[in-house]
Amino acid sequence: MTSDGSKPGLDPSDWQEFRAAAHDLLDACIDRLASASEHPWQPTPEEVRATYALAETGGGMKDPAQLANDLRDSVLPYGTGNTHPRFFGWVHGTGLAEGLLSEMVAATMNANCGGRDHGTIYVERAVIDWTRRVMGFPESSSGVLVTGTSQATVIALQAARLRALGADMRTKGQNGRWLTAYAGAGAHNAARKAVELLGLGHENLRRIPEGDAGLDLDALREKIAEDRAAGAIPFAIIGTAGSVDFGRFDDLNALADIATDEGLWLHVDGAFGAWTRLADSPWKELTDGIGRADSLACDFHKWMYVPYDCGLCLIRNEDEHRAAFAARPSYLAAQDSGLAGGDPWYCDYGIDLSRGNRALKVWSAIRAHGPDGLGRAITDNCRRAAQMGELVSSTPGMRLMAPVVSNLCVFTADETLSPDAQSALNSAIAQKLQLSGEVVFSTTLAQDVTCLRAAITNHRTRPEDIELSIAAVVREAAASRT
Amino acid sequence: MTSDGSKPGLDPSDWQEFRAAAHDLLDACIDRLASASEHPWQPTPEEVRATYALAETGGGMKDPAQLANDLRDSVLPYGTGNTHPRFFGWVHGTGLAEGLLSEMVAATMNANCGGRDHGTIYVERAVIDWTRRVMGFPESSSGVLVTGTSQATVIALQAARLRALGADMRTKGQNGRWLTAYAGAGAHNAARKAVELLGLGHENLRRIPEGDAGLDLDALREKIAEDRAAGAIPFAIIGTAGSVDFGRFDDLNALADIATDEGLWLHVDGAFGAWTRLADSPWKELTDGIGRADSLACDFHKWMYVPYDCGLCLIRNEDEHRAAFAARPSYLAAQDSGLAGGDPWYCDYGIDLSRGNRALKVWSAIRAHGPDGLGRAITDNCRRAAQMGELVSSTPGMRLMAPVVSNLCVFTADETLSPDAQSALNSAIAQKLQLSGEVVFSTTLAQDVTCLRAAITNHRTRPEDIELSIAAVVREAAASRT
Ligand SMILES: Cc1ncc(COP(=O)(O)O)c(C=O)c1O
Ligand SMILES: Cc1ncc(COP(=O)(O)O)c(C=O)c1O
Repeated sequence: MTSDGSKPGLDPSDWQEFRAAAHDLLDACIDRLASASEHPWQPTPEEVRATYALAETGGGMKDPAQLANDLRDSVLPYGTGNTHPRFFGWVHGTGLAEGLLSEMVAATMNANCGGRDHGTIYVERAVIDWTRRVMGFPESSSGVLVTGTSQATVIALQAARLRALGADMRTKGQNGRWLTAYAGAGAHNAARKAVELLGLGHENLRRIPEGDAGLDLDALREKIAEDRAAGAIPFAIIGTAGSVDFGRFDDLNALADIATDEGLWLHVDGAFGAWTRLADSPWKELTDGIGRADSLACDFHKWMYVPYDCGLCLIRNEDEHRAAFAARPSYLAAQDSGLAGGDPWYCDYGIDLSRGNRALKVWSAIRAHGPDGLGRAITDNCRRAAQMGELVSSTPGMRLMAPVVSNLCVFTADETLSPDAQSALNSAIAQKLQLSGEVVFSTTLAQDVTCLRAAITNHRTRPEDIELSIAAVVREAAASRT
Repeated sequence: MTSDGSKPGLDPSDWQEFRAAAHDLLDACIDRLASASEHPWQPTPEEVRATYALAETGGGMKDPAQLANDLRDSVLPYGTGNTHPRFFGWVHGTGLAEGLLSEMVAATMNANCGGRDHGTIYVERAVIDWTRRVMGFPESSSGVLVTGTSQATVIALQAARLRALGADMRTKGQNGRWLTAYAGAGAHNAARKAVELLGLGHENLRRIPEGDAGLDLDALREKIAEDRAAGAIPFAIIGTAGSVDFGRFDDLNALADIATDEGLWLHVDGAFGAWTRLADSPWKELTDGIGRADSLACDFHKWMYVPYDCGLCLIRNEDEHRAAFAARPSYLAAQDSGLAGGDPWYCDYGIDLSRGNRALKVWSAIRAHGPDGLGRAITDNCRRAAQMGELVSSTPGMRLMAPVVSNLCVFTADETLSPDAQSALNSAIAQKLQLSGEVVFSTTLAQDVTCLRAAITNHRTRPEDIELSIAAVVREAAASRT
């Protein structure tokens, strides 16, 4: 009761009613998961969207079943479609059923994982420590779970900048010093956005030409020398373990050698590709040398199939990590005991102070499937991409636009057309098959043609799905000729 | 079946078994929520923590009930304690029961909310538009949900920097130009961390002296003039709507006037305090003028009681927002129709590309309780802080260290002691009461004394909880004298 005699009333007034509504909703969620292969992406109808509007005044719903039913009928059916076995559009994880279990617990606990001494902090440590060992990073490393690789890249490059400029970076700022960083031409846009955010200017992210085996090492060395000669301070190399367009891998050992020679920070973007560490040969070897990096960014929401969002920034030297981010005001001072005890406080390792519980869903996935189960699924995805590549190569008119290295396959539906006509055809096919619900491909540019692109990080994809998908492209390409 | 005849096996092998385990776990979650007042924070025992370790090799658990039981027994009981009615330690929201419903749906959908055309993008729009109207921002505004105010501050200040330096900021970087920003002495550390991240150096975040009515406006004008005279480019004022230590509010109308006069960007940190907009008088008026800001950062996980994590960055001028962040490579190009259609793509409004579904839990909270229900709870929290302030003031020996303006109350348990002895006593009481499970206070510095601090953003706190808490402090202070 509040002082005026009414209940503040944000807890359910009737827990039995709430419980019944929650169980009904849970059944609807499980039905949906169990029938994922029947639910491709579908557009959200205008009349459904209209129901989403929120009023600026007024009270709430009395009955929890009303909210639960709205969630079930108006929201649940209109996802991104990445739960469907023929979703290959982008590097989107499928989401594991265990995510439902861990998210119920996380929502109930409502822990703030920015710091202090409580269970999920220890769960996060376990997840980070596990990844550290899988990736071959030393015990001196530290890490922090973040929304994704984009964030992790910002954190890593800020630590790299601190090493290059020294601690007065935090007090005085960059102060006119000219820094340059290096990445392959196919490095992800996340690197560009991070460099912009830090105020470095993206023209100072030098793009090094690359081929199927990653960025050109000689060109990298030359560019570094040229920049030094011009007065810049080269500070970081960004290696890619799994490029977003073609699934290419830089030679990480070679990059580590160059970084050592040049005194530069080596950051590896392993958003999805880092997880080939868990796969069988020959995919596992793609990430050889990854443990030599100064920092690694990778995602659990992509190829570890964990629900969105969760990525990791791992940094080789904890002191450098903390030096870049730790800063706690007096109201957050640690105590020797009690709730304000504990160490680390994750707010000292990144940008966020308040932090949701990302660790539990990762922990649950690893517990439920083990590195072996997850590795088997990753290996299988690489096999499916290879299968698609073979089908493309053996289908008259179709052409693979890059070798299938890992889990990406990029091709054109009809190489006999002019580049412009191919682009138009591939785009039209992508849209048509998305709308029909048969397959989700994305498109990307390769050899000046807008191509069809499949990124397979989907634990539900079966060999038949690949066959069906290529057959659908063949059919559409044929239809366009008539 | 995979090509080698085995199932990839990341979906449950028996959905009935999974369903049973999930329902059992849901019951445990609801039991926990319904008995929140019996569960204060407790330390995580060493032997429980030891069970969190993850193996580098091996398979998973066969039975989903095993994972569910581990979650229930080894994780669920060890939260931050902010679900308990006498948790006042930090500005931590309590978490609403509806969060359980929305998070089940979010985990099932596993939507990537970075962009594309699907339901939760429209839900996010509805949430942002609702907040825009509540805060009095114009229709030209745009927003993006983020982890919290720390992130939102980074995004807002990057947009502010772009306005000050022009679009070549993204290509060339700051390039030696000297920028300065301004905030009250009690502004949150998030501002400092943001300024450091952007490479500005925190000594260029000028701290303006403040009193109970917020930062000193004359001192602000003087400092801006002084910096200009010295060759700096003043670019942003950071106003505080609800300071973390004392719950103070800057005079936002006056700051908006100064920002206009000086041609500066006005950013408002309203992490929790912005939500007094939904409260009754006199608290509502604390945020008068908030709709005049160029940007606003606020959290839903604090005083909107939504589960962690979720904050918002709202920017007055969508063009400036996009100009600072939009950058999509070809594989993310929009299509006219299909899944890759839709606008906005939230990745164009911030740092993150992959994004979890933060909107649904906010939407569910607003649906379930309405602005009226949420406003009533916020008002009630302010009343509880006032009640605590009165109890402190009327208790011999205790002293309020700052007026109670909103929902924060900072006091010393025994003003008759030396400052050092007070500090020691207050710290000891905070730890003792955390460990006993009676009350969670935090500590902070005020007038050179480490004080007890209560931040009330807790929809479960009743008047009796306040009485009990102060009685416990009185008891401990007395015990220390004997
Ligand atoms: C190679 C690579 N790097 C970075 C990113 C960005 O990661 P996130 O979306 O988690 O921010 C992606 C996303 O697809 C990626 O594929
Ligand atoms: C006034 C104020 N600003 C900013 C923050 C940081 O917000 P977040 O923890 O959501 O990043 C806080 C956190 O308590 C705060 O109280």
